[in-house]
Amino acid sequence: MNWQAEIEAAAKRIAGHVRRTPVAELTLAGHTVAIKLEHMQHTGTFKARGAFNALIQGPVPAGGVVAASGGNHGAAVAHAAARLGIPAQIFVPEIAGPSKIALIERTGATLTVVPGAYADALDAALAHEARTGAMQVHAYDSVATLAGQGTCLREWEDQGLDADTVLIAVGGGGLLGGSMAWLNGRRRVVAVEPETSCALNAALAAGGPVDVEVSGIAANALGARRIGGLCLDLARQTGTTSVLVPDSAIAEAQRILWREARVLVEPAGATALAALIAGAYVPAPGESLAVLLCGANVAPEPV
Amino acid sequence: MNWQAEIEAAAKRIAGHVRRTPVAELTLAGHTVAIKLEHMQHTGTFKARGAFNALIQGPVPAGGVVAASGGNHGAAVAHAAARLGIPAQIFVPEIAGPSKIALIERTGATLTVVPGAYADALDAALAHEARTGAMQVHAYDSVATLAGQGTCLREWEDQGLDADTVLIAVGGGGLLGGSMAWLNGRRRVVAVEPETSCALNAALAAGGPVDVEVSGIAANALGARRIGGLCLDLARQTGTTSVLVPDSAIAEAQRILWREARVLVEPAGATALAALIAGAYVPAPGESLAVLLCGANVAPEPV
Repeated sequence: MNWQAEIEAAAKRIAGHVRRTPVAELTLAGHTVAIKLEHMQHTGTFKARGAFNALIQGPVPAGGVVAASGGNHGAAVAHAAARLGIPAQIFVPEIAGPSKIALIERTGATLTVVPGAYADALDAALAHEARTGAMQVHAYDSVATLAGQGTCLREWEDQGLDADTVLIAVGGGGLLGGSMAWLNGRRRVVAVEPETSCALNAALAAGGPVDVEVSGIAANALGARRIGGLCLDLARQTGTTSVLVPDSAIAEAQRILWREARVLVEPAGATALAALIAGAYVPAPGESLAVLLCGANVAPEPV
Repeated sequence: MNWQAEIEAAAKRIAGHVRRTPVAELTLAGHTVAIKLEHMQHTGTFKARGAFNALIQGPVPAGGVVAASGGNHGAAVAHAAARLGIPAQIFVPEIAGPSKIALIERTGATLTVVPGAYADALDAALAHEARTGAMQVHAYDSVATLAGQGTCLREWEDQGLDADTVLIAVGGGGLLGGSMAWLNGRRRVVAVEPETSCALNAALAAGGPVDVEVSGIAANALGARRIGGLCLDLARQTGTTSVLVPDSAIAEAQRILWREARVLVEPAGATALAALIAGAYVPAPGESLAVLLCGANVAPEPV
């Protein structure tokens, strides 16, 4: 796979449809970090990048598109579909929560809430695809999705990213996979996972994908039961490691982002920073750090 | 007054103490605008700029500093004083609210909550100054404060600001005054005031400063009873006009910033955008716009 070419093509495809999100350098809890405010992306997460890339690349059949999602990917696909005039059917699990469900409903997509977790929504989406021929937009484990998410790090480097190490939260591996694909080993990537939703960590330990139990405060964004194969391959190729953080550190990182910088993100959006708060990743002296803030679909909505 | 020199000197003084806040261009409620996320400044508002400038310029007597504030200026002075090792006595009115009061308390400054509005807190601060000889740090109507706030527009231009018109919320006139002083008529400045706290608008109409009643959802940030003389002079010299917005438009602008960009600001921080939402300022075809987001000390705190 020529990931550089895929991501360059994705960047051209989605230009004008996604935001160039701002970057800053600041000190948080005593750590000086470069941050990218990717939670300011359309629909509140990086997911809009992959969604626009997949839908524009197509081809989209008359039956439109279908997606399963913990909530954020569904909102992004619904938004992209609405902008592009494509019918969309979204399946989310109950744990998506009211904010994410309301966000999807506002786009006008057809929404089905499924009992259970992300994997149950995916089963329903696969059944819908088989029944209708709609195009399945996978939340993370497809080339189109992953290449779209890879445009985020491409953009950050274009904005002058100058860091030895980039910390990125991982659920199923779309954003992490796209980031590793773009960086291709040029910078160290640290994958950060909740202790209670750690599909990549488990796969690296087991030597291959395994199913994990998912729970905790970030489960409706990072709660993939099994890591994507594309992401796992890229993690092995680039020597990316995973560190685990407890929910308490995620909540603390969320508070620190608000208290010290007035940035409000959802738990998944604070998970990368939590690795520094918890000491799960300890930088070497002089090592420069970047932390990607990836989502802000908090519940309840603050205004 | 050579404002350019004052602001350049302020920028040198406060470098390393304040954040270079990020900027972005995005579409909000159908308006394409440049924004500056100055609410990400230390203590959640631009006020840190003026506070550091005043305290570093000094000279600060052994009795330290005193400030009256609707809350945000007090937090900024308390923060700057703590960082510089200077004792600080802050007076705020009850309407400052729990978030702003907690923010000041966290810095370790001595805090007195005064019944009434900002003007009552100012009376108490003036009495404290007379009694102790502490240095008074005025919230808006002093050269040091105003020059510090002027560094915000200086920084924005250094970041590539390219707008015909800049919309800025005004209370007492520190940020607006500093912005007008820096821009010196090179760009159109539109002052935006709540209908219920409109000291500049009333002064321009009356031909001089007059007392106004203050109330409404932004009163604990924009509720100055009388516009600062420095700001009023600058508004007249540069031909700056004031437009008024209802509280409903401020609340709607606050919701739009969250829903469309996941930026959470306090009502005062959304007031400049409210002028576009309410149609209080209607740009000409092709006119490029910038909107300064100036504060995010919402109550209750969202996390």
